[in-house]
Amino acid sequence: MGKRVRLWRLLYSSGPRNGKLLVLPLDQGLEHGPTDFFPNPSALNTDYQFRLALEGNYSAIALGIGLAEKYMEDYAGAIPLILKLNGKTNIADDHEAVSPLFANVEDAVRLGADAVGYTLYVGSPKQHHEILQFQRVRQDCARFGMPLVMWAYPRGRAIDAKGGKGTLYAQDYAARVAEELGADIVKLHEPEDTNDACPEPYRSLHEPAPERLKRVVRSAGKVMVLFSGGEKNDDDEAVLRKVKLYLESGARGVMFGRNMWLRPFDQALALTRRVHELMGG
Amino acid sequence: MGKRVRLWRLLYSSGPRNGKLLVLPLDQGLEHGPTDFFPNPSALNTDYQFRLALEGNYSAIALGIGLAEKYMEDYAGAIPLILKLNGKTNIADDHEAVSPLFANVEDAVRLGADAVGYTLYVGSPKQHHEILQFQRVRQDCARFGMPLVMWAYPRGRAIDAKGGKGTLYAQDYAARVAEELGADIVKLHEPEDTNDACPEPYRSLHEPAPERLKRVVRSAGKVMVLFSGGEKNDDDEAVLRKVKLYLESGARGVMFGRNMWLRPFDQALALTRRVHELMGG
Amino acid sequence: MGKRVRLWRLLYSSGPRNGKLLVLPLDQGLEHGPTDFFPNPSALNTDYQFRLALEGNYSAIALGIGLAEKYMEDYAGAIPLILKLNGKTNIADDHEAVSPLFANVEDAVRLGADAVGYTLYVGSPKQHHEILQFQRVRQDCARFGMPLVMWAYPRGRAIDAKGGKGTLYAQDYAARVAEELGADIVKLHEPEDTNDACPEPYRSLHEPAPERLKRVVRSAGKVMVLFSGGEKNDDDEAVLRKVKLYLESGARGVMFGRNMWLRPFDQALALTRRVHELMGG
Amino acid sequence: MGKRVRLWRLLYSSGPRNGKLLVLPLDQGLEHGPTDFFPNPSALNTDYQFRLALEGNYSAIALGIGLAEKYMEDYAGAIPLILKLNGKTNIADDHEAVSPLFANVEDAVRLGADAVGYTLYVGSPKQHHEILQFQRVRQDCARFGMPLVMWAYPRGRAIDAKGGKGTLYAQDYAARVAEELGADIVKLHEPEDTNDACPEPYRSLHEPAPERLKRVVRSAGKVMVLFSGGEKNDDDEAVLRKVKLYLESGARGVMFGRNMWLRPFDQALALTRRVHELMGG
Amino acid sequence: MGKRVRLWRLLYSSGPRNGKLLVLPLDQGLEHGPTDFFPNPSALNTDYQFRLALEGNYSAIALGIGLAEKYMEDYAGAIPLILKLNGKTNIADDHEAVSPLFANVEDAVRLGADAVGYTLYVGSPKQHHEILQFQRVRQDCARFGMPLVMWAYPRGRAIDAKGGKGTLYAQDYAARVAEELGADIVKLHEPEDTNDACPEPYRSLHEPAPERLKRVVRSAGKVMVLFSGGEKNDDDEAVLRKVKLYLESGARGVMFGRNMWLRPFDQALALTRRVHELMGG
Repeated sequence: MGKRVRLWRLLYSSGPRNGKLLVLPLDQGLEHGPTDFFPNPSALNTDYQFRLALEGNYSAIALGIGLAEKYMEDYAGAIPLILKLNGKTNIADDHEAVSPLFANVEDAVRLGADAVGYTLYVGSPKQHHEILQFQRVRQDCARFGMPLVMWAYPRGRAIDAKGGKGTLYAQDYAARVAEELGADIVKLHEPEDTNDACPEPYRSLHEPAPERLKRVVRSAGKVMVLFSGGEKNDDDEAVLRKVKLYLESGARGVMFGRNMWLRPFDQALALTRRVHELMGG
Repeated sequence: MGKRVRLWRLLYSSGPRNGKLLVLPLDQGLEHGPTDFFPNPSALNTDYQFRLALEGNYSAIALGIGLAEKYMEDYAGAIPLILKLNGKTNIADDHEAVSPLFANVEDAVRLGADAVGYTLYVGSPKQHHEILQFQRVRQDCARFGMPLVMWAYPRGRAIDAKGGKGTLYAQDYAARVAEELGADIVKLHEPEDTNDACPEPYRSLHEPAPERLKRVVRSAGKVMVLFSGGEKNDDDEAVLRKVKLYLESGARGVMFGRNMWLRPFDQALALTRRVHELMGG
Repeated sequence: MGKRVRLWRLLYSSGPRNGKLLVLPLDQGLEHGPTDFFPNPSALNTDYQFRLALEGNYSAIALGIGLAEKYMEDYAGAIPLILKLNGKTNIADDHEAVSPLFANVEDAVRLGADAVGYTLYVGSPKQHHEILQFQRVRQDCARFGMPLVMWAYPRGRAIDAKGGKGTLYAQDYAARVAEELGADIVKLHEPEDTNDACPEPYRSLHEPAPERLKRVVRSAGKVMVLFSGGEKNDDDEAVLRKVKLYLESGARGVMFGRNMWLRPFDQALALTRRVHELMGG
Repeated sequence: MGKRVRLWRLLYSSGPRNGKLLVLPLDQGLEHGPTDFFPNPSALNTDYQFRLALEGNYSAIALGIGLAEKYMEDYAGAIPLILKLNGKTNIADDHEAVSPLFANVEDAVRLGADAVGYTLYVGSPKQHHEILQFQRVRQDCARFGMPLVMWAYPRGRAIDAKGGKGTLYAQDYAARVAEELGADIVKLHEPEDTNDACPEPYRSLHEPAPERLKRVVRSAGKVMVLFSGGEKNDDDEAVLRKVKLYLESGARGVMFGRNMWLRPFDQALALTRRVHELMGG
Repeated sequence: MGKRVRLWRLLYSSGPRNGKLLVLPLDQGLEHGPTDFFPNPSALNTDYQFRLALEGNYSAIALGIGLAEKYMEDYAGAIPLILKLNGKTNIADDHEAVSPLFANVEDAVRLGADAVGYTLYVGSPKQHHEILQFQRVRQDCARFGMPLVMWAYPRGRAIDAKGGKGTLYAQDYAARVAEELGADIVKLHEPEDTNDACPEPYRSLHEPAPERLKRVVRSAGKVMVLFSGGEKNDDDEAVLRKVKLYLESGARGVMFGRNMWLRPFDQALALTRRVHELMGG
C-alpha cells in the first residue's frame, strides 16, 4: 500500500502530474568527482539543484544521503526525494565494478523519501555481490512500501568483451534484468548503433534508433523506463529531440542531470519548461 | 506438515493430478537475456506464460520475484507458483559460477508459492559458497514447510575439465548431490552420449539413452526428478518422444520452457495437451 | 549434561555397548559421487546402509541431512544418528580445500541425532575459514549438549608439499588439532610408511605400523579415535587384521564404510559380526 | 539533537569557542609505528598529548580506543574526545588499502566522546569495503547523535596512477566524497602543485595554493574542513603561515599533530597559543 | 569492574602475588603440531602442564578450549586460566597469516577464565581481517569485564621484507599496536640485534639488548609486557639470565612454555622456583 501511495505522489502529485516522470539526478559528484561541475561551478552547491527541481517542477530529485541530509531542510515536502543508496568513485577502474551501499531503505524512510535508487552493475564479474546486495534492498522496500528505481548499468570486463555497456545487447539485457529482479522503475541509456562485437542475434540486428528504444522498453515489461540524458549537450533543440524520441518509444520519462544543471540556472529552467510541454504535464 | 500440503497441491490438485509434474519455467530472461525470446517476441510479455500455464493446466509455473510480483495478480490461486530464488546473467563466463539469491523463502511465503527453486552449480570452484547459501534456503524451507526444487547444474572450470556439464558423470553426480543436500525435487538434463574426458568408471561406460536416464533417476534416490527440455526443438514429435523417454526412465515429470513458450500460443497449447496424454493425467 | 547422555547412548546402549564404537559412514555419494557405488549398486539406496547398521548392530550411522530426512523414518530410534554437517564434491581440486556446512546443529537436534560430524581440512590454505566455521559448530554443540565428531583430514597444497595427507606427520598433527579445537571424537586414517618429504623429526622417524598408530592415538589425548577403513578391500581377513591393529593401538573404534556396504548385504553382515567379536561387545 | 549538542561543545565550549576547530590528533603510533616519536620520545607517553590538549585549550583530542581507555581517566570531561574508530599499520603496502574498524560508535558513547573519526581510503581498489563499513558507522552516528569526522584520504594503486594522493584532483575528489557520503567534518591535506598525471581538467589547471585550498573547501560544501599539518616542520613561522593560509581558504580549522607534539612541551604550548591568536578564539 | 577483579586475581592472588606475572602457555600443539613435544613426550598429556602450573605456582596457564575443557576439571579454581581464543596450524606458510577464532569470550566466561588470549599478526597483508576480528573480541571483553592478553606477533610477507618478525622495528611496532588497539597485557619477543633491512630510524639504531627491551616496554605504554621464552634452551642459567634481563627492562613478567614443560617435571619445577626467586614473589 505504501508503495502505491509513494508512486502516486511521484506520478500524479508532482512533475508533469500525468503519470510521466521528469527526474533530476545528482550523484555525479561521487561517481565522477568535482570534474563534472567545472562547466558550471555554481552547480557544486546543491541548493542549485534543489532550486531547479522545485522551480522546474520536477517529479523528484535523486541524490545520496550526504546531500539529502545537508540541503533538503529548506525544500522538504516541496520536492519528492529519490534517495540513491549506493555509489562509488571512478578512481579505480570498472573491470569488476561493484557499487557499495552507503545508505539504506531505513534512511530513506527517515528522510521522507518517495523512492530509493540502486545501481546494479549488470554482468559485472562481481554481479554475485551486486545481486545479493540488491536483494536486501528490495526486501526492505517490500517491508517499508518503498518504490525501487534501478540504475541498470551494464559494466565490467565481460560486457566490454561483448561490445560494451552502450550496445543494444547490453541495454536490452539490463532492461530485462530490472524486470526479473523486481525493480519498479529502471534508468537506462539510449542504445548505440554499433553491435559488431555483440553476441547474436544482436550482432546481425540493424534497427534504427526508435526501434532500438522501443525494443528496450518492451524488454523492461511492466517496469517504467526512464532514459538518461548522459553527458551535457549544448544544443537545446537536440536535447528536446531526444526527450521526444524517448517518450515516443514508450518510456515513462527521462532522468536528465548534466544536461540540465550544467546550464546557467535560467537556461536550465527554460529548457525544463520546454521538456514539460513535450511531456504534456 | 506444510510441505506435505504444498507438495500435494503440486502433485494432486493441479497439472496431471496423478503425482506427475509438468512445470513451465521462465527464468531464461535473466539467465540468457532477451536473446531467448527472439523466436517468439510475444513471449516477452509474461502474461503469455501465465496464460499458457493456466490454459495448459501445468502443475506449476516457475519464475522469479520480479515476474511473480508484476504478473501473478491476475492468476493468483489459479496456478501454483515455484518461486525461483537465485539467478544471474550469462554476460560473465561460468568458470567459477555462482548464483546469487535475489529472493528468499519468506518472499515465497508472502506470495503464496507452493515451492521454491534454487540453482546449485555442482562442482563449481565456488561450490563452497553455493552450498552454504543453499543450506540457509533449505533451513528456511524446513521452518516454513516449503518444498525445495533444486536446479542441479554442473558448472565451472572443473567440470569442463572432466568432460563438461552434460555428461553422464556430471548429471549422475548432480542427482546424488540433490539427494544428499536435501532437495525434494531436482531438475536435471538428459545425459549426453560422450564420456571420453570423464573420470572412470564413466569413461568406460557405454549405455544407451534410456539406461543413462534410469541411472540418473536412481542416483537421485527419493528425490523426484524432472528432466529439462533444453533449447527449442521445432519438431513436435521429437519433443513428445523425449517426454515419453523421460517418463519411462522413472522421472516424475518434465520442466519444458522454451520448447513450449517459443511456439505460437495455440501450438504450445496443443503440444502441452499431447504431453498431458503421455503423462496420463 | 546432554552431551554425556548422548555419548552414553553411543558408547553403552548401542553397538558393542562396552565403550567401543563401530560407526557406519555414508557421505561418499556427496564426497566422491555415485562412482563409489558402482561395485555394489544396491548400496545406492540408503535403505541398504540403514538395514546394515540396524541388523549389524552398529553404534551409529553417519550421514547428511538429505539422506537422514528421507530414509530415517523407518529406523528412527532404532539406530543412533551422527549427522554429518558439512561436505563438498570432489569435482574441483583440493588445493585450497574447504568443506561448507549444509546443515547445522539445530538440524541434528530436530532429527534426534546423538552426535554431529564435521570435516576439518587440517592445514588447508583456507584453514582460516574451516576453523572459524568449526568454532560456530562447536559452540552450538556446547549449547545443545551435542557430541562432536571431527573428520580431521589433512588436505590442500601445503600438506601435499610436506609429504601428503597420509603421512604420519599429517595424521599426527590432525590428531592434536582435534584435541586442541575441542572435538569429542576424531576420525583419522592409518598413517603411511613414507615420510621422505615430511618436516623433521618425522622425516627421520621410522616406526612400524603399530607404533605409528599408537603415536597418533597419543597425540589425540582425551579425544576418542576412530580409524577409517578407506577404500574397499576384498579380503575379509585383511579387513579384520586392520580392525585388530587399530584397537590394539588404543583407538576407540573404527568407522568403516565402503569396506562394509560395498559387499553384498549378507557378506557385509557376516563381516560386521566378526568385527563385533574383535571389539568384544 | 544529540549531534547538535556535541557539535556545539566542540565548536563553542572548547578550543577557540568561536566556531573554529583546533584538533590534536594522535593515531600516528598505530599508522606509522613508534618511528614517529623518535624526535621527541616523551610524546610516546600519551599523557603528553592529553596535557598539551588541556593546557593548550584544544577543541578536542583525537585518538583510538586503547589510548582513550588507558589515559583519559585523569582528563575526562576536561577535554573533548574524538574517538578514532579505524586504523592499520603501514607495514604492508597501500596498493589496496583498507582501514579496519577497531572500535565502534557504541565505544564512543560509552567513553563520552563528542565525535568519532573514520578514515576512508578514497578510490582504493577496495573502496567497496571501505564505503560499506563507513555506512554502518554513519548509521550508528545517526542513531546516537554522534558527529562524524572523516579522514578522507585518497589512497591505493588507482590514485597513484592518476597522480597520487596529494594532488588537487585527489584532494578535491576526497572533499566531495565526504560531502556525498554524509560526513560532518572532513580532514584533508593541502593539495600539491603538480598535476601532470591527473585526469583533465585538473591536468591543465594551474592555480596558486590559496586557490587550490579554496577549491577543495568549496567541493566539501557544507562539510567543515580541517587541514592537516602533515610531517613536522621545525620552523614555527612556517607553521603559522600555513594555519593562516588554511583559515583564509575557508577551512573551519586545523588538525596538527606532529607539528605540535614533536616539539618540546613548552614550545608546543607556545606555538599553540600563537595558533589560537590566528584563530581569534 | 569485572576486569579489575580478574586482573587482581592474576596479579595478587596467584603466581608471585606481587603484581608480577609468570604464565605457562600451551598452544604449541596447535601452532606447530606434535613436533614440539618430541623432546619430552610426557608433555603431550596436558595434565603435565596443569600439574606444573599448580605445583610451580604459576600466575596462570594459557591454552585453548579443547585442552581447557578436557583437562581443567581436576584443577579448576586452583590455577587461573587464560583462554586462548584463536590459532592455526603452521602447515601452510605465513605470507598472509591470519589466526581464526576457535573460541570466544563467552566460552571464557563459561569456563571461569581470568583472561583471554588473542594472537594478532601485526602487519600481515590480511591485518584487515585480524584487526576487525580483534575488535569484536575486545568489545566482548569490555562487556564481560575480561582482561585481554594480546600475542602481538609481527608476521607475513610485508614484515619479512622489512627485516623480519624478530627485529626491534617489528617488536617495537607490535608493542605500540597492542597499546593503541586496547590490550591489557601483551606478549612480545626479545628483539634481535640485526636491523639491516629495517626502515629508518631502526636501521641506524644500534642498541644493546637491555636498551632494546626497555624501548619495547616503553612503546607498550600502560600495557603490561610479558616476554616470551621462545624455543627450548637446555642451559638453566641462560634461562634465568633471560628472565632477569626481561624483568630489569620493565616487563611485568614472562611467558615461558617450552623452556619449562620440555624439561623433565622435576627439573621444570626446580627451574620455576628459581624464576620465582628472581621475581621476588
